[in-house]
Amino acid sequence: MRMAALSGASGIPVATIKFYLREGLLHAGERTSPNQSQYDTTHVHRLRLIRALTEVGGLSIMAAGELLATIDNPELPMHQVFGIAQGAVRLPISQISAQDLADGSELLDKVISDRGWQVADSLVARADATRVVGTMRALGLEHSHRMLDSYARAAEIVAKADMDSVQAVTGRDAKVETVVAGTVLGDVLLAALRRIAQADYSSAMFGEATAGPPGAALPPAN
Amino acid sequence: MRMAALSGASGIPVATIKFYLREGLLHAGERTSPNQSQYDTTHVHRLRLIRALTEVGGLSIMAAGELLATIDNPELPMHQVFGIAQGAVRLPISQISAQDLADGSELLDKVISDRGWQVADSLVARADATRVVGTMRALGLEHSHRMLDSYARAAEIVAKADMDSVQAVTGRDAKVETVVAGTVLGDVLLAALRRIAQADYSSAMFGEATAGPPGAALPPAN
Repeated sequence: MRMAALSGASGIPVATIKFYLREGLLHAGERTSPNQSQYDTTHVHRLRLIRALTEVGGLSIMAAGELLATIDNPELPMHQVFGIAQGAVRLPISQISAQDLADGSELLDKVISDRGWQVADSLVARADATRVVGTMRALGLEHSHRMLDSYARAAEIVAKADMDSVQAVTGRDAKVETVVAGTVLGDVLLAALRRIAQADYSSAMFGEATAGPPGAALPPAN
Repeated sequence: MRMAALSGASGIPVATIKFYLREGLLHAGERTSPNQSQYDTTHVHRLRLIRALTEVGGLSIMAAGELLATIDNPELPMHQVFGIAQGAVRLPISQISAQDLADGSELLDKVISDRGWQVADSLVARADATRVVGTMRALGLEHSHRMLDSYARAAEIVAKADMDSVQAVTGRDAKVETVVAGTVLGDVLLAALRRIAQADYSSAMFGEATAGPPGAALPPAN
């Protein structure tokens, strides 16, 4: 198909597609004349992936571009693809005090050991989790090992599902794309489902008590 | 304590504390002279919460300020606090095509009904989840109901833990603060733990196959 048809098929304006081509996020079409190229379904699919990463996943164009470069490098071992996908979605965490860090580290190490997770001390996500747990503890939010343990159990279920969906597709490119898009979109999906489940518990727990007869749960407030 | 001591106790520069006071994020101290006020542990605690929301949770100062205003309004019913906390952390999702939306909606409705969740159709998180699921389906990521079902089970475990930690604290202010900080920090914690669990599965699954003898899992790549 020509550029105009690619724009129609993907719903993305021609100028935006040209920008993606220039920036290397989208592979070039097959040149049929000095001013024209032919595009195919691989271009439509890649455009969908770019939009998923930037519009649904919230990545910048630059971050999406770096991430997509991993898909195009067949030399990269699969176990490194996860690291790169994880690195593209940096969690918004900065420094905390040494004491909070030490407390967080102690709590997190226990959870990791309880779950039998074999992960390197140098894993970025481990440092991120340590800072969040330390901050929660400093705020008095972490009232028992139980909460952290529940989160870890949930994370394990999700990571298992992530791995299963990587296993379910065939071919290296499809596996890598599943890792990349799944890492970015999975965070958002999980956060949204958490809110839905909270709304269910919240209306049952607080809706009735504050504003209605028993059995008549209020809909949540947003 | 005086301003200098508050700065020392919280580790936050005086100029920043004065900014939070002006913007209404931090309550005023008790004025002891025209140029001096006394601060106490409630100020230290509030400063910790502000930093947790902005530096660990990634909220803007303005978003954190709006969220903190809920804590200071004792009229607000508890079931609305969740809605407001959820609204402060908007998920980065934009429009998708009508077909993808319809597909996503069908899949999500089934999961919500399978889990027995009672939530309003108008819930913002429900629309967010629909868009993510629709996007995943369009990318060919959602290979079975099983993946979505695993995510929903995980979300339920986390939401239950969230509710338990709200129940575990006494007093309305403490409950509200637990909701607010828990919503923001919980997302980050869950995402970080998901990455750790992925690293554990990934090194077992791909590390050995690509680069080491059986039994010698490589550490993940970041």
